[in-house]
Amino acid sequence: MEESFVPFRGIKNDLQGRLAFYKKDWTGGFSAGLSILAPTTYIFFASAIPVISFGEQLERETDGALTAVQTLASTAVCGIIHSIIGGQPLLILGVAEPTVIMYTFMFNFANSRPELGSKLYLAWTSWVCVWTALLLFLLSVLGACSIINRFTRLAGELFGLLIAMLFMQQAIKGLIDEFRIPEREDPNAVEFQLSWRFANGMFAIVLSFGLLLTALKSRKARSWRYGSGWVRGFLADYGVPLMVLVWTGLSYIPTGTAPTGIPRRLFSPNPWSAGAYKNWTVIKEMLDVPVLYIIGAFIPATMIAVLYYFDHSVASQLAQQKEFNLRKPPSFHYDLLLLGFMVILCGLLGIPPANGVIPQSPMHTRSLATLKHQLLRRKLLAAARKRMSENASLGQVYASMKEAYQQAQSPPIPPGSAAPGLKELKDSTLQMAARLGSFNAPVDTTVFDIEKEIDNLLPVEVKEQRLSNLLQAVMVGLCIGAMPLIKKIPTSVLWGYFAFMAIESLPGNQFWERILLIFTAPSRRYKVLEDYHATFLETVPFKTIIMFTLFQAGYLLVCFGITWIPIAGVLFPLMIMLLVPVRQYMLPQFFKGPHLQDLDAAEYEEIPAMPFNSTTDIEMLSRRASFADDGEMLDGIFTRGRGEIKRACSGPILASEELKTVEGPQVADRGGSVTRFRGDLSPRQASKGPFTSKPSHLGKTG
Amino acid sequence: MEESFVPFRGIKNDLQGRLAFYKKDWTGGFSAGLSILAPTTYIFFASAIPVISFGEQLERETDGALTAVQTLASTAVCGIIHSIIGGQPLLILGVAEPTVIMYTFMFNFANSRPELGSKLYLAWTSWVCVWTALLLFLLSVLGACSIINRFTRLAGELFGLLIAMLFMQQAIKGLIDEFRIPEREDPNAVEFQLSWRFANGMFAIVLSFGLLLTALKSRKARSWRYGSGWVRGFLADYGVPLMVLVWTGLSYIPTGTAPTGIPRRLFSPNPWSAGAYKNWTVIKEMLDVPVLYIIGAFIPATMIAVLYYFDHSVASQLAQQKEFNLRKPPSFHYDLLLLGFMVILCGLLGIPPANGVIPQSPMHTRSLATLKHQLLRRKLLAAARKRMSENASLGQVYASMKEAYQQAQSPPIPPGSAAPGLKELKDSTLQMAARLGSFNAPVDTTVFDIEKEIDNLLPVEVKEQRLSNLLQAVMVGLCIGAMPLIKKIPTSVLWGYFAFMAIESLPGNQFWERILLIFTAPSRRYKVLEDYHATFLETVPFKTIIMFTLFQAGYLLVCFGITWIPIAGVLFPLMIMLLVPVRQYMLPQFFKGPHLQDLDAAEYEEIPAMPFNSTTDIEMLSRRASFADDGEMLDGIFTRGRGEIKRACSGPILASEELKTVEGPQVADRGGSVTRFRGDLSPRQASKGPFTSKPSHLGKTG
Repeated sequence: MEESFVPFRGIKNDLQGRLAFYKKDWTGGFSAGLSILAPTTYIFFASAIPVISFGEQLERETDGALTAVQTLASTAVCGIIHSIIGGQPLLILGVAEPTVIMYTFMFNFANSRPELGSKLYLAWTSWVCVWTALLLFLLSVLGACSIINRFTRLAGELFGLLIAMLFMQQAIKGLIDEFRIPEREDPNAVEFQLSWRFANGMFAIVLSFGLLLTALKSRKARSWRYGSGWVRGFLADYGVPLMVLVWTGLSYIPTGTAPTGIPRRLFSPNPWSAGAYKNWTVIKEMLDVPVLYIIGAFIPATMIAVLYYFDHSVASQLAQQKEFNLRKPPSFHYDLLLLGFMVILCGLLGIPPANGVIPQSPMHTRSLATLKHQLLRRKLLAAARKRMSENASLGQVYASMKEAYQQAQSPPIPPGSAAPGLKELKDSTLQMAARLGSFNAPVDTTVFDIEKEIDNLLPVEVKEQRLSNLLQAVMVGLCIGAMPLIKKIPTSVLWGYFAFMAIESLPGNQFWERILLIFTAPSRRYKVLEDYHATFLETVPFKTIIMFTLFQAGYLLVCFGITWIPIAGVLFPLMIMLLVPVRQYMLPQFFKGPHLQDLDAAEYEEIPAMPFNSTTDIEMLSRRASFADDGEMLDGIFTRGRGEIKRACSGPILASEELKTVEGPQVADRGGSVTRFRGDLSPRQASKGPFTSKPSHLGKTG
Repeated sequence: MEESFVPFRGIKNDLQGRLAFYKKDWTGGFSAGLSILAPTTYIFFASAIPVISFGEQLERETDGALTAVQTLASTAVCGIIHSIIGGQPLLILGVAEPTVIMYTFMFNFANSRPELGSKLYLAWTSWVCVWTALLLFLLSVLGACSIINRFTRLAGELFGLLIAMLFMQQAIKGLIDEFRIPEREDPNAVEFQLSWRFANGMFAIVLSFGLLLTALKSRKARSWRYGSGWVRGFLADYGVPLMVLVWTGLSYIPTGTAPTGIPRRLFSPNPWSAGAYKNWTVIKEMLDVPVLYIIGAFIPATMIAVLYYFDHSVASQLAQQKEFNLRKPPSFHYDLLLLGFMVILCGLLGIPPANGVIPQSPMHTRSLATLKHQLLRRKLLAAARKRMSENASLGQVYASMKEAYQQAQSPPIPPGSAAPGLKELKDSTLQMAARLGSFNAPVDTTVFDIEKEIDNLLPVEVKEQRLSNLLQAVMVGLCIGAMPLIKKIPTSVLWGYFAFMAIESLPGNQFWERILLIFTAPSRRYKVLEDYHATFLETVPFKTIIMFTLFQAGYLLVCFGITWIPIAGVLFPLMIMLLVPVRQYMLPQFFKGPHLQDLDAAEYEEIPAMPFNSTTDIEMLSRRASFADDGEMLDGIFTRGRGEIKRACSGPILASEELKTVEGPQVADRGGSVTRFRGDLSPRQASKGPFTSKPSHLGKTG
């Protein structure tokens, strides 16, 4: 995306880009059938539970002026609007913690001014929303989102980890509070006696750790050894909501023994309770606000606008990381414009606005990647099995799978695009076929495991559509009616869920993985290289990686510290904004260009391609020796090198004609060690970070 | 061991066999230096904690006539005697659950007879011990242990799993009791109010699961990715005791909040309390027992004798499984004789006797195997590093390691024995060396990972010595003095530890692994084959494995059910005795000889060797296809087959002269896929179960 500040150009481009896919966004969603429910429920829980909890927090802080009913309503309304007419349907909207902090701050301010008081609080926030919306319009029209690329991986991952830390903090704080008397409750009630409080706290530990551990386990169910494939698939797809149900059920076991308040459960008024709907008519009171305060509302509005601009765009960016190989274009400017409209709407309804949220948005994309994998797998399997039943050869089976894959592409891969296609057959499969002399002979179904083969062939792709987002938003809306049921969930299950969300957001975050790398025993570092890993691990010296990570971790701690400052805390996004000049002007003083390029690629930095492709294996080995601190790491690299040895010796056995028949327009096999290694070392191909480059289609729309 | 009933022959053979190694049993222990403390503390905790808990149980059941002081004393005294003059020093002695059940039964009996009463209870049990000892002498002298081989793997593993179930049952029962008012306590105390009881129960869940999960994790510390090697090694060696300390410490956090009884802690009188030592003078009262009861004591004595004969021998057998590759001979007859003397001694001291215990005995052997591995590793590493610093070639380095290995052998491997030696260098290592042209050139220390290589070269061996057993017995004795400290451990930590012991005893139990196999998804069964696995997996049809396992599981449940019958429960060893005729005469009616041979090898059954060695890879593949239920399993097998392909093609590259220089008298490489596979299919070599054959030295002594 080029940086352009011509008014409306960004919005126009976004609209053009997304409109071309609008029909497919729906047909694609419906074509997935019932399996769309797996990512939907997964994201629904990830979306609804924090929103309910933030609503509870808001209720405490605003003396009941805003409750979970309002936060759920805002999340549902904005989610439905965004999923239908929004640009990027992967983006999940919700009322987030910063919004809660801002609304708390504004409540305290309004309460301290006799001209406003708690009576005109909501009316005043409506004015704040109006100003915020105007600022967002301005930012959107002027193309402010085109500089979003200046927020490199450095900033995005730092922000992601900060959110994870805040979630974890909330989980720990919540758990500790289970041992205390809640503020607004009657301290003389039976359940707040010392003994019952202690019992409640211990019960809370059991429930929250129970949920956390079982939810984490269930996410990995697909690779379990035990249970039928159906059960494992179901657990992996629906395990987390199921565990919320299970642990809520378990929390009722001591019903006869313990008083009703044990364990503590979610607190929220029902939407039909008196006073729960006084916000909806706030528009009538807006003109009661003194003019001075109407103008003064501009000050908090600037802060919220900056916050939303950043939060919304980064959430969108993280949902569209390069690793996901998205096919459809992004829509930063138009989405910001729409956010402005939604902020006004929420303001006039007297509910706190929703914006794009982390970690739910990237979680959404990841769950859709799993869905897409399952759908493609099913199609390829059917095609391959059909051919195999006709006694086809391996080459024919592969061709039929390729055909099925091409047919399943929507939009189809444009010729010559960088989009990934079906990978090549594994070396080992070909070797086996060659050895058994069966490449052109019928596939031996007793030794050829087609399912595993397909898993290896498929690239990462995402089921990009609008249905899952719409459905989850509708379900969040239904929660308002189901409040009596939701209130059965113990708060401690919620804290466990917060911790689960924090942990779920970590994998794939390179910053986090570099932190882990620092704590990895030197003798075990080779294990990192054995897995799928980032380019910088092979190209950047270990000391440079450490320095870069320490800098980032220090910066993170400063940001985290700022969130603790009572009111200024809401300004922490400014710290992350500050990362743009730091990254652009300061970091290049301390780190070499190629290293920064690999650690945190930025589009405005280009370095010439290095002639790696001609190096021999041995040279590569010795080249990378500089990076290794000890022998074992090199052993890891060597293991990969061994693949080359195997290849070199198996090459002659495999007739090259046979290879040709299965070669297609594929990109380098990311799974194979050596091919991928070389591909990665070609800098322009490999080191484009997820924050700098959308694939080619982005260039066209930007 | 041949079956021989010539009086005293078994004892004589045992003594001859063990005396030859007696000096080495001590020098070997001391030569290990401080590292002997790792298995010692590990077994000390596994030995002391159940004994303390059984003591507490006994105190409740016998109105305080016997307490943890007496069970600890018995365990210490018998342990010290056995470790110094016993035959098999791998065997761990302790007061076991069956003994507790028998002593409870005898207390109830004595209490119901006015001629005895609780006053003469201990004196009467002394007479029972005298009779028991006489019966044990008889069994030992007549060579009853020579039929121990008739207890095949079937019986031994069933018994092992039964004990694991009893431990787990105790853990669950203990945890549930944390919510209840203990029997002998004042139900009006603060800590037994409903609210505090509930709090105590929840706290107990936190502590016991905390201990269980962290202890299980710490045992695997050596393969963690994080932390330095030293920390990981320390955690793996001492993690379990450390976790008992940590969770005991954590249990003190709510000291200010909760009343003193929360959480409940171990209860036992101090050894210096009044009444805690009245048992020591029981010998004076023995003649006060009416003659009728002295004679009648013979009846419980027969039961105890049968129990001890079985329990002691099977514990010894499980501590000497074939997989451990022990070098020193067993000593079943002599150990039973010694047990008789110890039973008399304990009887006259008025303490319940100790016998060989499961799972502690096999746990002991396993921890000593780890120790031996570390010691050998250190020596080989030093030798190899020295040579490498002299720029030696790979062949020279390997030769120096072989030399170091031979020197470390104590006793040295007799020529032509079946004992394992240092394995061959890995194919991959040789390939690499050949490719880099460096087999005779100096080893490139930057790419050759000597530590990993050594781990692959070393066979399983055990540090067979007496020191760890003696030290742990002494430490158990010291517990009596340290009772005030031990009483700080919460009972809930103890329940977690019981569960930990139950789970720790499972790996390596083929019965358990077959149960898991039944629950393994058909599509994942190939994963079992990818790991180190038992022969039967490749030679016995899956349906036969299921039938055999179901029979065994049904039998196990019957045994477990019998333990629930109030008094007859103590007879459950008879059920396991019954397995001998069942195995010998009934099972062969339902299962084919070769299958039984692989599932449960018995020495009295011999089948002719099958000519497998000449089959080709393809034939082997198709042969095993009968076993696979689906394609994925075969894929697993095929993965192994692939090794062969690699081998076939890498062969020519590697000059055979080079191979010869590193070949030694090794047995087939258990790690390599195809070599090992063939080795296993040769029935006489592979299918000797751990219960039928001690290696050659056993033949000499039997």
